[in-house]
Amino acid sequence: MDNTKLEDLYQTAKNWVYEAGEVIKRSFSNELNITYKSHYADLVTDMDKAIEKFFIDKIKKEYPDHEILGEEGYGDEVKDLDGTVWIIDPIDGTTNFVHQQNNFAISVGIFHNGEGKAAFIYDVVRNELFHCIKGNGLYLNEEKLPLLSEVTLDKAVIGLNATWITPNRKIDHHLLLPLVRKSRGTRSYGTAAIELAYVACGRLDAYMTMRLSPWDFAAGYILIQEAGGIISTMDGSKVKVLSKTSIFAAKPGLHQEILDTIHTGTPQDGE
Amino acid sequence: MDNTKLEDLYQTAKNWVYEAGEVIKRSFSNELNITYKSHYADLVTDMDKAIEKFFIDKIKKEYPDHEILGEEGYGDEVKDLDGTVWIIDPIDGTTNFVHQQNNFAISVGIFHNGEGKAAFIYDVVRNELFHCIKGNGLYLNEEKLPLLSEVTLDKAVIGLNATWITPNRKIDHHLLLPLVRKSRGTRSYGTAAIELAYVACGRLDAYMTMRLSPWDFAAGYILIQEAGGIISTMDGSKVKVLSKTSIFAAKPGLHQEILDTIHTGTPQDGE
Repeated sequence: MDNTKLEDLYQTAKNWVYEAGEVIKRSFSNELNITYKSHYADLVTDMDKAIEKFFIDKIKKEYPDHEILGEEGYGDEVKDLDGTVWIIDPIDGTTNFVHQQNNFAISVGIFHNGEGKAAFIYDVVRNELFHCIKGNGLYLNEEKLPLLSEVTLDKAVIGLNATWITPNRKIDHHLLLPLVRKSRGTRSYGTAAIELAYVACGRLDAYMTMRLSPWDFAAGYILIQEAGGIISTMDGSKVKVLSKTSIFAAKPGLHQEILDTIHTGTPQDGE
Repeated sequence: MDNTKLEDLYQTAKNWVYEAGEVIKRSFSNELNITYKSHYADLVTDMDKAIEKFFIDKIKKEYPDHEILGEEGYGDEVKDLDGTVWIIDPIDGTTNFVHQQNNFAISVGIFHNGEGKAAFIYDVVRNELFHCIKGNGLYLNEEKLPLLSEVTLDKAVIGLNATWITPNRKIDHHLLLPLVRKSRGTRSYGTAAIELAYVACGRLDAYMTMRLSPWDFAAGYILIQEAGGIISTMDGSKVKVLSKTSIFAAKPGLHQEILDTIHTGTPQDGE
């Protein structure tokens, strides 16, 4: 894909993201028709489905050879990242959407032959669009943001949900306790997309979670690398973009310090 | 204090809160001069001090007989709630202020002869002012919000920081683990004022923390009761407004269910 084509794709995608945001904002005047998936916390609204279909219709018409992987499953069965692949979460943070009508985002990552080329995380209500085209730096709305710089754990604010520091099936929670004790504080916003965007723009110094799907992290994966951050699995391995996986993103320096703290430190629970 | 006097006080205070917000917004173009208190997480900026002085100057000139309790200590030594007392946190969420230039609030609660009369929590960057005058309902900016209705724990989103569900000196963290497991999810925003405002407006169903000072919760204490919520200490006792205390705020119904879960439930850590 040459630069002109990429720039065109980026501008088109950005317009669609804004347009989708407008659709969501308008919906707040209507009653939400909420249905439940198998897990109670995994709420699905009509809006999720409508927004995914919105993107699919646009993409299939404008770029018929592109593939689409979306949370709601109306896209393609994407088996690899050959060609151009869009990975879309129409509404990341559905529980927040339902409970707060706030703190949710549209997340769109675009890959070409395996490489992240453009990404958008749009905090709709707050009108904050985190976006990038590969090699051109990270933007928040019209403002170009600086590259992330190193920070140490004792000065870090970490995105970390209570689930992972209490007994759970994904990680020995004792391993993470030193992070709570040694960091400056933890936060949890209930939306992986926004939490990853916050790492990219420096509002959080790190973020970790044990279980995400491609649509939850695809855009953040591209944004964080564009911002000079590091993103891996929880054990420091390369992320497989099409797999369910743990995700650990952090500023340079801090990424290794946290890995060392978790994996070579003595687990402590203070008891 | 008659209604006309109270209404006048409320409007005057609201104008000052907005004005203080403008001062903070303008400061973002300047370098922040950050000094440290004894604890690393307790950052103090010049802005904290400037905003507290801003309020004190205004109040002392307009209402010379009112007393002021403020975080930065430039106010009075307030021993009781006789007469009219302002309790002010110029910037709640100082760590967020420094790290994010976002997610912080001005918090102002006004008491008269022991009773909460008016309150303001202003999320400056997002331009969300949660406010009330006693008996007139809770407002978010110009919009009057509905009274809080009952909810059960399994449908609740709870504001709960990692500190309290890991070993700490304030509470046996095992007691809180059932809340993480049984609720729909937990959030942590790093500012008690905003977290209390979120309970008042229904974005969170409950919020708890083991250690707050009067300026952290005074405005939230008033707002939550005005919204039909319940606010107490962690063991369900009445809050002493002038003391350092634990704080537990929740929707009706949920407040008792959480107390029962914590204090009569079997502590479980899954180990």
